[in-house]
Amino acid sequence: MLKAIDHKIMHCYPGMVAIVTVSHNGENNVMAAGWHSYISFTPPIYGVAIGPERHTHQLVKNAGTFAINFLPLERAQFIQETGTYSGADLDKFENGSMLYTSGPATGAPILEDAYVVYECKTIDCNSYGDHDWFVGDIVQFHIDQDKFLDNGLPDFENLSIPLYLGRSLYTSVENTSRFESYRVTKE
Amino acid sequence: MLKAIDHKIMHCYPGMVAIVTVSHNGENNVMAAGWHSYISFTPPIYGVAIGPERHTHQLVKNAGTFAINFLPLERAQFIQETGTYSGADLDKFENGSMLYTSGPATGAPILEDAYVVYECKTIDCNSYGDHDWFVGDIVQFHIDQDKFLDNGLPDFENLSIPLYLGRSLYTSVENTSRFESYRVTKE
Repeated sequence: MLKAIDHKIMHCYPGMVAIVTVSHNGENNVMAAGWHSYISFTPPIYGVAIGPERHTHQLVKNAGTFAINFLPLERAQFIQETGTYSGADLDKFENGSMLYTSGPATGAPILEDAYVVYECKTIDCNSYGDHDWFVGDIVQFHIDQDKFLDNGLPDFENLSIPLYLGRSLYTSVENTSRFESYRVTKE
Repeated sequence: MLKAIDHKIMHCYPGMVAIVTVSHNGENNVMAAGWHSYISFTPPIYGVAIGPERHTHQLVKNAGTFAINFLPLERAQFIQETGTYSGADLDKFENGSMLYTSGPATGAPILEDAYVVYECKTIDCNSYGDHDWFVGDIVQFHIDQDKFLDNGLPDFENLSIPLYLGRSLYTSVENTSRFESYRVTKE
């Protein structure tokens, strides 16, 4: 039964993890972010929460650009590592054997194993509590079209999307034969 | 293969749907929002994107308060309806047979079938493209503790969390025996 409680909880998963990449003054970094959202479609705008103590924070702040990468389930280990380690201590790309190119619009790393990438130019940043909320115009889209159906939905026969559950656990929606979709229709 | 493209795409699902409720001057309303995020844990802060053309938008703007409700899979039909219909045209609570109480901190409707609710007081609102991004301090938490394990994770034996896929399709993570969790460990 639903009850008002006097302590705080955090329930916002299962959710997709956004892999934030950035390049500033020749330094490249990558970080997993669990708190992120599309904000506008026309024009396309994306937001992501980054803690000010993160090495990535200062790079994104100074670069004024970043990229949001989405990786498949096979890369869950890399996702978890980029959220755990700091770019101040090690090269997370090298550590995770992750190849990348330089984004044409922002210079931010475009992860070779990603199936969707949004290159963003920061248009706003506000501090809310223990995170800063970065908002960016999406200025360049990248997609692996083989992973999507003609109707725009992911092709779960060819793409396993990792969903973070909390406590270093991931699950996935991976195959149409293995999950039950529930189509809601108007009465 | 990942390629830069010259058109825009929207990939941000599968994702949980936030059911936004609001009460202003005796009028109660409810709306499904696909774009939302936790932003800070200390203090707890939540953000949600609401289109300015939505009836809920004006109510939230004027009330200065709102609530974020999460509903189980059994209520997917209601979720879809609250995103489709307008409170200007019909009473969505009555139409969907959804009972609610008045939130003690904000007066916003607390949906009886919800398993988690955040009552929020708006601390900021910015227009980004076709949506406004409302940011609120979470001032009161509500939880159905029977739906969660002692470690804070959802108890998938007792709770099916609906995940929106796009195009009126939902899936869910419903039972530990039916999904494979992938635990990532440090090397």
